[in-house]
Amino acid sequence: MSLILYDLAGADPARRFSPYCWRVRLAIEHKGLSVETIPWRFTDKDVIAFSGQGLVPVLVDSGNTAVGSWAIANHLEETYRERPSLFRGAGGKAFARFIELWTDTVLMPGLMPLIIVDLFNHLHEKDREYFRSSRERRLGMSIEQAGAHRTSRISAFQESLELLRIATTAQPFLGGDEPDYGDYIAFSGFMWARSVSPFKLLHIDDPVALWRRRMLERFDVARNSPGYGT
Amino acid sequence: MSLILYDLAGADPARRFSPYCWRVRLAIEHKGLSVETIPWRFTDKDVIAFSGQGLVPVLVDSGNTAVGSWAIANHLEETYRERPSLFRGAGGKAFARFIELWTDTVLMPGLMPLIIVDLFNHLHEKDREYFRSSRERRLGMSIEQAGAHRTSRISAFQESLELLRIATTAQPFLGGDEPDYGDYIAFSGFMWARSVSPFKLLHIDDPVALWRRRMLERFDVARNSPGYGT
Repeated sequence: MSLILYDLAGADPARRFSPYCWRVRLAIEHKGLSVETIPWRFTDKDVIAFSGQGLVPVLVDSGNTAVGSWAIANHLEETYRERPSLFRGAGGKAFARFIELWTDTVLMPGLMPLIIVDLFNHLHEKDREYFRSSRERRLGMSIEQAGAHRTSRISAFQESLELLRIATTAQPFLGGDEPDYGDYIAFSGFMWARSVSPFKLLHIDDPVALWRRRMLERFDVARNSPGYGT
Repeated sequence: MSLILYDLAGADPARRFSPYCWRVRLAIEHKGLSVETIPWRFTDKDVIAFSGQGLVPVLVDSGNTAVGSWAIANHLEETYRERPSLFRGAGGKAFARFIELWTDTVLMPGLMPLIIVDLFNHLHEKDREYFRSSRERRLGMSIEQAGAHRTSRISAFQESLELLRIATTAQPFLGGDEPDYGDYIAFSGFMWARSVSPFKLLHIDDPVALWRRRMLERFDVARNSPGYGT
């Protein structure tokens, strides 16, 4: 068994900020597997051309290639059945799918304007034009316009986390007493922010902040990666 | 095996409106078990005194007594392991626990002012004073004040269902392709409303309404119970 993960990096190759790569990174930790991560930039399309597309995460597992965080999680779950389950049953898999949709439609769009300027400033020089033009086309405005007035947006962002607040009030982790793939999905958004932005997102006593801290304490790979604050 | 469920009823003994009893009723259906339900009113405290407390659901299973919807669901899951699982794994159980907290802190309080006057009007005569005094103490206002202006509250209620909308957009049921205990918890709130109130809660094309219809189509016991609309 040998795992290789192509992992989005900033100007500093140790700074890994892709939330989708973080989902995979933590899933690999959960399975107790080791992985070689290869820093990759948005414009390194040729490096992953073998995968048939141009985005990370790309996982190469003993010569087999899996693309996209959900597909990779399922690959890991099926290939390493004897190791701790990422989903712990069909019910947990449905939960993870739901957390994924919430994260991608509520959490990530909520974080984006709060961190996008900081993110841009951490990109490798060669990625900046690609990032600016692709994001500005998607946003219909400049990165700077999208990221303006973030202090006035923070209350609405915090309110939008009610689902996560309820889940992490009920139990230490979304997965219950132990984290599972649903935790990694939601936490990946906070790793995205942490890796590039010093902007304070949460009150220190917010149950979401306490859960984020539990996750950081649990995962050395997250806590020790270049980023801001806790 | 013989199951007996003490089940909250209105003036019409066939009208069963307790959301906590509905969770149990649907869990029993899920397990493919049959049950004798005994209509019970709030003031029939002596009838369930054997359970050591004064609230339903109370389940008597071959002489053993279980009290409270979550404890009863766990009793059914453990006692009837060979039958379809209510949680499908530890991950699904964490999901159900989360849905329970959301239902009890968001859905039920959101529904309450929309249906409380209708609910009161369906109570057995002997329960009305108990219900009015206990609820008015809890609410700090009269039932009629709590239930006032419901038309102006419906948009906020519908917005508050975003979690359920996301979950039922991602998959047909919260449990994935098939309903499980998380579905029964959330659906129990809508059965509470349906059993006593004609007030229209949802747009016909709201994903939550489509899920509610799938649940009604799936469960004869829900669809055929006295209530309003679909």
